[in-house]
Amino acid sequence: MLHSKMFVKTKKEAPTDEVSKNAILLYKANYLYKEMAGAYSFLPMGLRVLNKIENIVRKHMDKIGNEILMTSLAPKELWEQTGRIDKVDVLFKAVAANENSKNKSNNEYILNSTHEELVTPIALDFGRSYKDFPIAYYQIQTKFRNEPRAKSGLLRGREFRMKDLYSFHIEEQDFVNYYEQAKKSYMDVYTELGLGDDTFIASASGGDFTNRFSHEFQTVTDAGEDIIYIDRDKKVSYNQEVVSGNAEENIKNFGYDISKLPQVKACEIGNIFPLETKFTKAFNFQYTDKDNQKKLVEYMGCYGIGPSRIMGVLVEKFGDDRGLVWPKSVAPFQMEVVSLHKEKSDEVYKKSEEIYQDLLKNSYDILWDDRDLSPGNKLTDADLYGIPLQIILGQKSLEKGVVEVKIRKNEEVREVKLEDLLIEISKIWQETF
Amino acid sequence: MLHSKMFVKTKKEAPTDEVSKNAILLYKANYLYKEMAGAYSFLPMGLRVLNKIENIVRKHMDKIGNEILMTSLAPKELWEQTGRIDKVDVLFKAVAANENSKNKSNNEYILNSTHEELVTPIALDFGRSYKDFPIAYYQIQTKFRNEPRAKSGLLRGREFRMKDLYSFHIEEQDFVNYYEQAKKSYMDVYTELGLGDDTFIASASGGDFTNRFSHEFQTVTDAGEDIIYIDRDKKVSYNQEVVSGNAEENIKNFGYDISKLPQVKACEIGNIFPLETKFTKAFNFQYTDKDNQKKLVEYMGCYGIGPSRIMGVLVEKFGDDRGLVWPKSVAPFQMEVVSLHKEKSDEVYKKSEEIYQDLLKNSYDILWDDRDLSPGNKLTDADLYGIPLQIILGQKSLEKGVVEVKIRKNEEVREVKLEDLLIEISKIWQETF
Repeated sequence: MLHSKMFVKTKKEAPTDEVSKNAILLYKANYLYKEMAGAYSFLPMGLRVLNKIENIVRKHMDKIGNEILMTSLAPKELWEQTGRIDKVDVLFKAVAANENSKNKSNNEYILNSTHEELVTPIALDFGRSYKDFPIAYYQIQTKFRNEPRAKSGLLRGREFRMKDLYSFHIEEQDFVNYYEQAKKSYMDVYTELGLGDDTFIASASGGDFTNRFSHEFQTVTDAGEDIIYIDRDKKVSYNQEVVSGNAEENIKNFGYDISKLPQVKACEIGNIFPLETKFTKAFNFQYTDKDNQKKLVEYMGCYGIGPSRIMGVLVEKFGDDRGLVWPKSVAPFQMEVVSLHKEKSDEVYKKSEEIYQDLLKNSYDILWDDRDLSPGNKLTDADLYGIPLQIILGQKSLEKGVVEVKIRKNEEVREVKLEDLLIEISKIWQETF
Repeated sequence: MLHSKMFVKTKKEAPTDEVSKNAILLYKANYLYKEMAGAYSFLPMGLRVLNKIENIVRKHMDKIGNEILMTSLAPKELWEQTGRIDKVDVLFKAVAANENSKNKSNNEYILNSTHEELVTPIALDFGRSYKDFPIAYYQIQTKFRNEPRAKSGLLRGREFRMKDLYSFHIEEQDFVNYYEQAKKSYMDVYTELGLGDDTFIASASGGDFTNRFSHEFQTVTDAGEDIIYIDRDKKVSYNQEVVSGNAEENIKNFGYDISKLPQVKACEIGNIFPLETKFTKAFNFQYTDKDNQKKLVEYMGCYGIGPSRIMGVLVEKFGDDRGLVWPKSVAPFQMEVVSLHKEKSDEVYKKSEEIYQDLLKNSYDILWDDRDLSPGNKLTDADLYGIPLQIILGQKSLEKGVVEVKIRKNEEVREVKLEDLLIEISKIWQETF
């Protein structure tokens, strides 16, 4: 893509009300536009990153479920049927905005913060016989939460992107196997996102619905709101809410005294949750078993990942004092051609265009900074954008017959002969973070 | 995909409150789940069609704009600033659902039915100099309208999918050129969707914002809510709202007496609209011109296409008494292997699996009906699903060494030798609707 056609312009300073690193860097790099606290519009570069994250999530979820898209609005009756309408503090409802209109509808709808109330009737509509199980639907969608405080950029939003998966089982072992498979799929997602090394499965409270533990996926970062006790050898951790001061209780629950483990701050980037019969009972979700008897569906699980929050965590983890740093799996572009031309008639401009076209032809996803802007501004912008590789061409390097290839993450610069560029860039890309 | 893993089950009857053809067929084929009037969840087959429609729209919009994703929630102030908060009857606002909660936030937000109030400040943030123009952003997103009556399935929703593009220009000719280009891009979209022959550009009223006409894209169908006067030779039409009973006035406006043209019912599947300075004035959108003077941005256009409505129109246009019929560009799968086996140990089952795998390897997008179900049910389901090609294998055809390839649209059946299948299917696919 040509930078001149992208409608993106970096900022020198972020608004003073933005305090989190992710919000500041994403604002300055013009990835996001802040509509209000906790609600950001995704500009072209930001949307590219979000889409890449969502496509990685989708790829792994397609292996364990089927994608659907449920409505954002729900009839109030569904939320009344589970009793949650009076329990979820952050729930929004949609009502007529124009109170003076004669044509307005007085209907009220729930704006779903989560979709158990919608997916259970859908699964019930399909799952009439024991032969129909297990059932697993997922969706990737915008969700709404009436957060009283939202000040951590993409980490806590009033409006955010969510992948939510729901599974229904009629045998306990089938549920347990599926739940373990979901854990593996989640770790595959985080590994592909570049977060694998610092993300830990954490046992957490099961909440109101189950005696089992639920499981969170926690990424170690100072920006996190959670405290976890971390066991790096076993690659597991424990949310402080399940850690007892009593050693014996810890040993009973977890096999060893987890209160002795080191504590770190972490951000939850996913959770999986046994829901038992909370929702299947509320909707009387029965199936016909082998002996033609009606039975309640006993096992339901829900499994969440927030793609927009993950985008924020990636910035918190990898961003540095010069700007964003994206893992190659989610970067908005793979490479940026930084053309340090003075004007469009320059040899530098012409050669950069040639390089840009050559790389496009070789199926690389490229941003070409073709703007008429000072070399300093372009180099500063390129660092701020955080695209993994910068291919920098100026008058001096052109005279030497080379380009500089800069690896954004470690700031290493390699001089590559123009005629070797395609071969060398392929090698460098392979080894890029 | 294996049908047995898809969690989709057809229905014999649609609910009696569904009266429109699109809602009835999409319900029976289990493409949609009705949450309430005007709000449908997309099940696996339905979501595949919706995604294909949106990707075709995206492909053509990428040529004339940059994709972003704006928030669904907006601060009320933005809608107050344009005065539209008291004028749009169908506008929703989001407020706390749980009125008894102590932790609830009393904030109220607008749930955007359209995004001029959000995109204008975003464009203003970017477009400070004459060099930055034209600017064109688009998004594909769920929109909300508090429809008092919603009874036409996907044709009129409380919640629906929308592509909305907005452009900003500082010179009239640039705006006019862009507007004409948008018309062409829209027709390219409809042609690729299989709607080109019956879709007409219609002059319509410009509404409150402009003396110019706006333009609708109207597809001829009895399910439509509009009446248009159609000129098939010129491939244009006129919404009845702009047709005068006075011949001279018609001649003045359009060059000939359009009231003599034949009238048909049609459904609007897109519109483009000059907005003049309605929104740029409200947000004081000024830029610096060549002489370093501040000037108002004088030309803004908006351009909408509703992918979910298009899905409904495709059903209205092409669905027949046996079910759905999809053009190949948007079908959920390209082909369905209908395996008429009695049990999984059958030769028929094994051969169907082989055919399924062979077609997958050749990059076709295939549904394999591997369910244990009677041949009659499978054939009825296949017709209802409306996938363009059915590859039908039963015991008799297997003994003859052939499969039947059925073209869903015209019900033509061709016998193809098993060993020629890959070559023949490639030819048949080329000529498929």
